[in-house]
Formats: sequence, structure tokens, C-alpha cells
Amino acid sequence: MSLPVSMGRLTAESAVSRAFLVKTRGRIMALIVKKFGGSSVATTEKILNVAKRVLGEKKPGDKIVMVVSAMGDTTDDLIALAEGITKNPYQYTREMDMLLTTGEQQSIALLAMAFKTLGHPAVSLTGPMAGMKTNSVHTKGRIVDITPDRVHEELDKGNIVVVAGFQGADAFGNPVTLGRGGSDTSAVALAGALKADTCEIYTDVDGVYSADPRIVKGARKMKEITYHEMLEMARLGAGVMQPRSVEMGEYFHIPIHVRSTFTTTPGTIIREDYTMEDKDFVIRGVAHDEKVAKIAVLGIPNTPGIAHEIFSALADANIDVDMIVQSIRNIEKNVTDMVFTVAASDLAEAKKVVDGVADKLNAVAVLIEEDVAKVSIVGAGMLGNPGTASRMFGALSKVGINIDIISTSEISISCLVKGSQLKEAVNAIHDEFFPNK
Amino acid sequence: MSLPVSMGRLTAESAVSRAFLVKTRGRIMALIVKKFGGSSVATTEKILNVAKRVLGEKKPGDKIVMVVSAMGDTTDDLIALAEGITKNPYQYTREMDMLLTTGEQQSIALLAMAFKTLGHPAVSLTGPMAGMKTNSVHTKGRIVDITPDRVHEELDKGNIVVVAGFQGADAFGNPVTLGRGGSDTSAVALAGALKADTCEIYTDVDGVYSADPRIVKGARKMKEITYHEMLEMARLGAGVMQPRSVEMGEYFHIPIHVRSTFTTTPGTIIREDYTMEDKDFVIRGVAHDEKVAKIAVLGIPNTPGIAHEIFSALADANIDVDMIVQSIRNIEKNVTDMVFTVAASDLAEAKKVVDGVADKLNAVAVLIEEDVAKVSIVGAGMLGNPGTASRMFGALSKVGINIDIISTSEISISCLVKGSQLKEAVNAIHDEFFPNK
Repeated sequence: MSLPVSMGRLTAESAVSRAFLVKTRGRIMALIVKKFGGSSVATTEKILNVAKRVLGEKKPGDKIVMVVSAMGDTTDDLIALAEGITKNPYQYTREMDMLLTTGEQQSIALLAMAFKTLGHPAVSLTGPMAGMKTNSVHTKGRIVDITPDRVHEELDKGNIVVVAGFQGADAFGNPVTLGRGGSDTSAVALAGALKADTCEIYTDVDGVYSADPRIVKGARKMKEITYHEMLEMARLGAGVMQPRSVEMGEYFHIPIHVRSTFTTTPGTIIREDYTMEDKDFVIRGVAHDEKVAKIAVLGIPNTPGIAHEIFSALADANIDVDMIVQSIRNIEKNVTDMVFTVAASDLAEAKKVVDGVADKLNAVAVLIEEDVAKVSIVGAGMLGNPGTASRMFGALSKVGINIDIISTSEISISCLVKGSQLKEAVNAIHDEFFPNK
Repeated sequence: MSLPVSMGRLTAESAVSRAFLVKTRGRIMALIVKKFGGSSVATTEKILNVAKRVLGEKKPGDKIVMVVSAMGDTTDDLIALAEGITKNPYQYTREMDMLLTTGEQQSIALLAMAFKTLGHPAVSLTGPMAGMKTNSVHTKGRIVDITPDRVHEELDKGNIVVVAGFQGADAFGNPVTLGRGGSDTSAVALAGALKADTCEIYTDVDGVYSADPRIVKGARKMKEITYHEMLEMARLGAGVMQPRSVEMGEYFHIPIHVRSTFTTTPGTIIREDYTMEDKDFVIRGVAHDEKVAKIAVLGIPNTPGIAHEIFSALADANIDVDMIVQSIRNIEKNVTDMVFTVAASDLAEAKKVVDGVADKLNAVAVLIEEDVAKVSIVGAGMLGNPGTASRMFGALSKVGINIDIISTSEISISCLVKGSQLKEAVNAIHDEFFPNK
């Protein structure tokens, strides 16, 4: 996890207890950051609904900061417009940021109007106005500092403050967008800088589930999950939250409440540790990733530096390698096989790179297999439960599923299985760890 | 003409000769500000055409600053969007500015991309980034200062600088739009602050004509016109340029070249004084205004303060009164009539106000007449030509047109005539002062 060094001073501050918990008439007033994505504000009707909901749930004295994305397809429409000027507008990243940042600027203006129309004072602030300072890597910016003085000022005036997500300005005042998942990151980072009590991320799912509910019928919504577990889930294929925003939450010690735009039921809180009640489960969830491909380099000399040769070539081509197994093919000839996985989207490029290296090494063959998938269990609880791995393997074996590669991290175990068996594998493992009540 | 006091220091600077005229290889390099309106950049194709044209006309070493409006109907579309939130979005002027300023931000990004696609370095700057400081009167802001450091920096790097017209930021960093004609004002003021050599305003007419070419067949394009004459023409109904931008041009001593987006022929230069060749004409043009209505308050006591009573009531209602005639109705009874004109759009409101006052004054009657129009001649040259007025009245009398009210300023004479006779009146006067060659 790499976070900008310049944020250090903010951490120190936020480690101190919440400055914004002000006790008044026996009730704790809260500072809450609420993030709504593009689909939640896709039409003016939806924008009005968001405002109504937020006002309906607001407790007297609560301070509310909204972070919103561009309306629905606005970003795509703007990209299409730029394509009317040049086939590849992303070659001009600075101008793309100038163009794209208008999307959120429109939605914040409209949402602030919606609050005011409904009778509550509100003010919109662009990312730069809210103090979001970024580096100068246009279209893929990273937040380097946040100075939310203006946000505090407007909150103190009684306003709901509506901030443009996904954007900030660099040291020269140029608009910079944050890249994929940027609005979540904006929201959590702003919550951190404001020392908010919580950051609520409204999305089209109503929380983090023990497995993908589309695959596992009995998947359970988790009340809580730790930052580390959530990051591991995301890394292993569970798409609820972008890892960057979870990292930000951990960094700033901000609880992230993932919940539904469409219902008012509580979602899942991502935090440092669980409260007692939710500690029952050894694992937090079963993640899976179908977009995986396997590459096997067969019959290469088992000499020092062989692994480096293959994987540095892939790294140079910007290809991430995931699971790796090296196995001896022939002890007498000292020949080995190297098997690993890459993202399916990288397969063609990876094959080219590996073919080149394999030629140099006189490999016997390079095989690829696309019908593979990764199933993983994640949970900090497995640290104190040594039998967890064998329970997982047993569950797969019971339904006759062969394991191709195994890899582990501190809080996860992953198995590569046949893609066609993925659904069965996820269900078998889920049944083992989350038996039906 | 009221211009912000805080601009004083800029004037002092711009009074000095053009700092940006740098002699190089025998040619004077120029700094030129070019303003293109919304219809000139309504589509990506038109944006590319603007970029091609500017690059085609650019001389080596010239520094170019573009000021552009929002694309075509963008502003109207954004207003319609806001109307999806609230029936009267303009009650939230700050949020309207937040919303509307995205329009120009999109067009500057696209135009900068267009220049780059065509091979010339370019960079877009929002109004605030270009240093446009305004007051805090949202949707009707006025420029209070310009600090165009960033514009100079980017020009020095070899960029064509594309600046968003119509917008700036107030002292708190809030986006503020400049109201009607704001982009012209942006362009001329920025030209002034940059000490540009000229400011070119590209529009759908190719210059300033001696009369409206839709009414007078033989109307002539003027090569030059003074700021004062242009202001007077605008005041009297000629709609080519917004008065504020002409005032800015005079204030900063910046020649304004009004020319066509669609042709490359020279247009009309608005400047301090003419060069010799264009001094032939006693007047510069014949202006007209059909959107006029006449109100007559008949039979009121001719006592001191009567005029004040009527016109202060109208002023309180924010209604401008134009031509005024007071005539004695009955000397013995010391009773008088008060006749004046207002903008047709103010008539209903003005009638209400005047009826109230007339009641108090026991006026005999309040009459209104809508079939009236104002025809005017404008020209600094009439100062030294005492016969000008009588030539105008003679021309009207020759074609049998009766004059209802006459009013004069230092450089103009206006006559109120029947609306149905306006076209004939304009032609008769034009023939008198601009006889066919």
C-alpha cells in the first residue's frame, strides 16, 4: 500500500480523537460524508430523491458533506465529444481533465439547488475549492494533500456542502481527475481530512456479502469487515469498493459504510476491527475471479535467475503476475516447469513476452489455458485457526473439484480451479464456512 | 460609464505603449486576443474550423489568446437541466454560476485539443485561471481586476492560450458569470490587461454598418468607428456589440476589430479616433429601435417637482425612461402634458406605475402608444457640422414623415416616428447622409 508521504501530517491529526464530536443536549452531533455515484444522480429526478433521502435521515445538528460523481452518462458523452475533435483524445490528458471535471461540477450545482429547493441551505464546491490537492498526473491523479478549510467554513454556516468527487487541482491550479474509483477515494480522503465520524458510500449493492449473491444463493451480508479483509477481497475479485478508497479509510481511520442507494437498511461497515457480535466467522467471505488465464512454461533449465528472467520481462511490459508455481519436471536433467496466472485481459500481451523469453531459454513448450478461475477465502480469523486451509480444500474435494494452483497470503487462501467448475467451487466453500442456519 | 475603481492601476499600465510589441527580424510581433462566440464553436466540426482558420492567419511569432463562449445551445441546455430541479433556478444564482461556467470550460478544452491535433501547442484556462477577478454578483458579475500572469506564462511557452469567456471568480474563489455579452467583455478586458495590440471579435455579421443592412439596401460597412460612436449606436438600438465591452475597449485603449466568423474580409475597427481616410462622413450610422413605447400623461399641474414625482416612481420600479418632452397644455390653468418613451418590454409595468402617480396628480388622462419607433443618427462629425439636425429633419419631411419627439446627445440626434414608417424613415435619412456613389 503506497500512500503519499505528504499526507503524514494529516494522519497525525486524525489519530487524535474526533474533533467534531460535539456533545449537545445529550446527543453526539456527527460529521458525515456521504458519497453518491453517477447512477444515483443520473437524472434531475434522482438528484431530488437523493436530497430528499439525505434530509429525511439527517439528525438535528449533524453536519453533512456530500461527494458526488458526474450524472449518469455525462462522462461518456464528454469523451464522445472529445472524439469529435481527435480520434484519441486521451493523448491530451490535461485537456481531457479540463473537459471531464465539468461533469461533477454540473451535478454538484444541481444537487445543491435540490437541497435549497427542499428548504435546506447548501453550497457546492468543486474538488479544488474543497482543497483537494493532487499530483500532476492528469486523468490518473493521486491526492497529495487536502486543505478543507472552505468545507469547514461552509459547514459552520449551516450548509450541507456538496463536493465534486473524482477531481482536484495540482500545484499550478490545473484540474486533475483521479482515475477509476476516484469518487470513492475523494469521499474517504475528504472524510479523513475533515476528521468525519463516518463515510457512507452509496452504491447499487446494499453491502459486502460473504460471496457474490448472484452465484451463492445463501450469501450473507456482513455487518462489518476490516480494511485488510476488504482490500484482500477486492484484490481477489470482489468488486464492491476500489482498493484505493479502502486504503484511504485505513490510513485515516475512517469507518466506511457501504450501503444501498435504493434502500435504507444498514449496509456493511469497513473498519479497523469488528465489534464483538460479528466475530463468529473464521472467514469474512468467498471471493472469486473469472478473468484469469494460466500460462505454463515447460522444460526450462532449473538454474538461478530463471524466474527473474521470465517475470522481469513481464514486469517490463507492465503485466501483473498473480499465482506462481514452480515444479520440478525432471530431476536428473535439472529441468523445471514454471506455471503462473495473469489477468485474462493481459493474456495476449503476456503470451508474446513469454514466448520471447521461452525461445531464449530453449523451453520445451509454452501452454496457455483460459478455462481457469480463482476462488479465494478471506478472513483475519484464519490466523488463529490452522485448520482453515484444509477445510477449504476438503470442501472442494468433496464435490470432486481438482485444485490446480494454491496461493496464500496472511489473511487469504486462493485456489485455481477449472472455470467451468467455479460456481460449484464457490458454493461448496461457502457452505463449509457459512452453513445454513 | 462606470468602471470599477480597482482597475485604475491597470489603466496606468496600459497607457504606456504596448509592451508586447517585440521587434524581430524587421517584423513587429503582435499579441492578439480573438473572441469566438457560441455559434462559432457550436459543434466539434466548427471548433476544428476555428482552430484551422486561426492557425492559417497566424503570423510567425504572433501570440494568440482565444476567448470562447460555451458551445451553441449548451447554456440553454444547462438552464433546462436546472429547471428539472426547480421552476425558477435563477433564484439560486451562485449555483447557476457553478452550473453555467461548465459550458465554457468544455469549449476551451475542446478548442485547445483542436489546436494540438492540428499541430500547435495550446492550453486551456478557465476564467479564474486566467486571472479574471469579479465581484460577487452572481449571474451578473462585473470584472474588478485581472491578473493574467498565467496567460503570459503560457504564451511565453509558445502556447496558444484558450480562455473561457463570460466567467471569473470572486474574492472567495466562487465562479461568477458576467451576464449578457459577457464573453465580449472578457475578451476586451483581457486584451487590456495583457496590453494586447488588438482584440478581434468574431461574430455573425462582418462589421458595423451605416444602417441595418436588413432594412437599408445600400448600407455601408464602416472601416472605423470611435468607442463613443459605437456606444451611442448600441444605446440607440444597433446590436452588434454589447456596450460594456466597448467601454472596456475605451478604458484600456484597445482597438476592437469586429469581423465575421465566416469570411476573412476585414471588418470594422472600434478605436479612439479614425485614421484620415475614413473621415469623409459627417455621421457614422443610422440606428433604429422598434422596441419602444410612448406614454403621455395629460393635464397635470405645472408645478415644481412634477417631473420628479413621475420619473422617480418609474426609477423606483427599475424602469428606464428615454425621450422626454414636456409641453404646455393650458397656460392659464398652468396645466402641462408629460410625454416620454420606455422600452416596449417595460410598458405594462410602466403603465401601472404612471397610472398610480396620475391618480394622485389628478391628471386628465394617461395615453399609451405602441406604434412608435426611434430613428437616430450617430457621429462625432456632427459636432462641427451645425446643419446636421436640419438635414435629418428635412429628409424625413421630404417623405412626409411626422416627428413626434426629438432628443439629442453630443454625438446623436433621435426622432420618434410612427412604427409603421420606420423603414422608410431609416432609408430616407441614410440616403441623405450616405448618397449612392
